[in-house]
Parts: sequence; C-alpha cells; structure tokens
Amino acid sequence: MAKRVAVILAGCGVYDGTEIHEASAILVHLSRAGAKVQMFAPNAEMMHVVNHCEGKPVTDKRNVMQESARIARGEVTDLAKLDVKDHDALIIPGGFGAAKNLSDWATKGMEYSVKPQVEQVIKSFHRAGKPMGMCCISPVLAAKTIPGCELTVGHDFECEKWPYANVAKSMVELGCKHVNKNVEEVHVDKKNKLVTTSAFMCNAPLHEIFDGLGIMVTDVLKMA
Amino acid sequence: MAKRVAVILAGCGVYDGTEIHEASAILVHLSRAGAKVQMFAPNAEMMHVVNHCEGKPVTDKRNVMQESARIARGEVTDLAKLDVKDHDALIIPGGFGAAKNLSDWATKGMEYSVKPQVEQVIKSFHRAGKPMGMCCISPVLAAKTIPGCELTVGHDFECEKWPYANVAKSMVELGCKHVNKNVEEVHVDKKNKLVTTSAFMCNAPLHEIFDGLGIMVTDVLKMA
Repeated sequence: MAKRVAVILAGCGVYDGTEIHEASAILVHLSRAGAKVQMFAPNAEMMHVVNHCEGKPVTDKRNVMQESARIARGEVTDLAKLDVKDHDALIIPGGFGAAKNLSDWATKGMEYSVKPQVEQVIKSFHRAGKPMGMCCISPVLAAKTIPGCELTVGHDFECEKWPYANVAKSMVELGCKHVNKNVEEVHVDKKNKLVTTSAFMCNAPLHEIFDGLGIMVTDVLKMA
Repeated sequence: MAKRVAVILAGCGVYDGTEIHEASAILVHLSRAGAKVQMFAPNAEMMHVVNHCEGKPVTDKRNVMQESARIARGEVTDLAKLDVKDHDALIIPGGFGAAKNLSDWATKGMEYSVKPQVEQVIKSFHRAGKPMGMCCISPVLAAKTIPGCELTVGHDFECEKWPYANVAKSMVELGCKHVNKNVEEVHVDKKNKLVTTSAFMCNAPLHEIFDGLGIMVTDVLKMA
C-alpha cells in the first residue's frame, strides 16, 4: 500500500513562502518512494510579499494557497480540510513562509505562536502517532507544539556555513533538545516520530540539501 | 575547471512562468556535476498572471525577473546582460513562461516569434558551438531560431500519457526533425549541440521527469 503523505505549503519563494527547492526535492523523493501526496496550504493572505530580487517587502497582496499552487501545479487543498485520518505522515518544508504564514516566528522571535490551524494539524499527527518531517526553519513549528521534542536546525555555532545558528540556541531556550547535524544528515526523535534536517539553514550546494531531504523522506516513510 | 552554465528563467510557476520542478531538478543536477550556474530572466512584465488554483488569468501585473528570483533565491541577472563569452552552455527549462514570456507560442501557435533578446542569446550560443539544453515546451524556442534542428517534445501521438503530442507535429511543420522519446530519455542533435527532453510534456511521476532532466544536464555538460 502506498503511504499517504500530507505536505503543507506556505506560499512560493524562500523570502515570503515555501522554499521552492526544498518542496521540490521532497516531492521528488516522495514520488520515487511511491508515496501518495496531497498538498495543503492556508487559504489566507500572506504576511507580506517580498520582491525576491531586492529582498524587500512590496505592497502587493497575495493568497498563501494560490501562491502554493505554483509549486503544486494547481493541486493544492485548503489546509482547513486536512483530516489526519486520511494521511500516514506529514511533511512541512521550510522557507520564511513557515515563519511568516504558518507562524509568526519571523516577527515575534521567542514570543511567537503557531497559527491555530497548523498547531492543530501537528498535534493531531502527534497524538495519532504518525510521523512528521520538517526542515530548515519549519522545526520551529514543532518546537512550540510538541514541548520538549528533539530536533535539528543544523549547527549551533554561527559561521559562514551556518549563518542562522542562533535559531538552534532559541530551540534550546524553548525547552527542546537541539542536536547538531550536517546538511546530509537528519535527526530522528523516535519518541515523537519527528524527523528534521537543516536544508537551507546550511550554506551548502543544492545537491547536498537535496540528499539530506531524501534521508528525511526515507526516515519519515519508515515510521509511517 | 567548472563548466559555466547560463540558465534562463521566465517567471515562477507552470501556467505563467518557468515550471518550478524542472528548474529545480536542473539546478540539482548542475550542482552535483560541479557546474557554475548563473541565472537570467527578462526584466519585463509577464504576459499575464495566472491564479494557479483555478488555472485562470487574473489582473495582477508581475515582472518576469522578480518572479524568477523566487526560483533563483534572489540571484538572477537581467537577460540583457547575458554575454555568451562568459558561459560554456545554456539551459532553458519549460513551463508556459517559455511560451508566454520568452516567445508568443502560447497565443500565436505556428505564427509565433521568439522574443528578440532570447533569439539573440540562442543564436549566439549556436554560432559559438556551445551546447544548449531545453525541455518540455522550451524546444519551441530552438525550432524557430535554429531552422531544421532535431528535437524531442516527447511523443507525437496524443494519449493520456502524452496530452500535448500535437506540439510534436507542429515542430515537423516548422521544418524540424522530431524524434519520439520517453520521459527518461533525451534526444541529442549532435550537429547543433542541442539536447532536449520531454519533462512535463509527459504525464509521468515527478522522479521520472527529474531523471530525464539529469540525462539532459549530463549530455549538455559532456559537450561543453
């Protein structure tokens, strides 16, 4: 039987949505594993729209689900309709969308909260004992909804290769166990069935990020 | 020495821009091969913007280069600045952007023309004897600018697996030699150093499209 995997998107583009290459890599690995994928996104306005040439916000308004549909080639469902019973596993790619449209981590930092819809979905999968995969910045969603979970967002020592290492320290302050892992590695929290990998938290060549995500997908499917 | 590859983008999203998964796959394969990539896009208004949930145009205006920057994570250069001397090869992913923003194939069909900037770039690479890779619908750009070239857009017999097979017939009417190829295969026009593969012209699982694009990238780099 094909494993049924729900993937939550948060727009389309690293600075205001889902990181495109993370999402695409996850979908390639799920396809190769023969998984049955359904993509979801909040039917809500994006926090803001960023001109990706300049890295600066502009005044446009865009809808998270409509922009996510660019990655999903039209096949995206309103997140409000996600029912944990229909899926064996959940995967949430990274990109600032996870910190802007699925939570307010990008603006509130340690005082953040996860959007109620997203929180409810993660808690449902957790309660049902179904595995979850998160990468890049999206593990912050787990840090809040699964208190005390183990995860990786890469390394906790800032350098050129790990420009966002202070996120790892925040995870510890939130009560999580952070485990340093390289980009081609994952951390598996067996108790919580949570698989995490750093992806673009690491300044690494794209194929290494692709391979790390491949291990994440494999480990999620193993537990599904 | 790393091969220097120019990649031309045409927006971000299958229905009005570059097909995201084709672009991402190409970039993963180029990364694994150790190529040095520079991405380009026209600094021009998109033909139109499509709501990818509904597949219908909306009234928004967007810029091709700014939307392409979502795929390029900000690192995209105005196509007007592309100089063939700086590159060993050229790759153009598919998606309707190739037929809407790099040419007017989507609206004019057989009476189409390639945008002058794009035409000039393709002719420059051809004259310099530098290889080119195109996939999905982007081979229509070669069909017009390299008269009589050999290419594939998949199969020429329409069925569920090949919903756009009539494009192959148009290529023949334009004086090209069309070669039927499966999604995990490419056609190499050795004389013109043109490598083509069907990608999303085929109704195939994503990993098969990914693998076909890997062969395209390998064959382009071999000739570079």
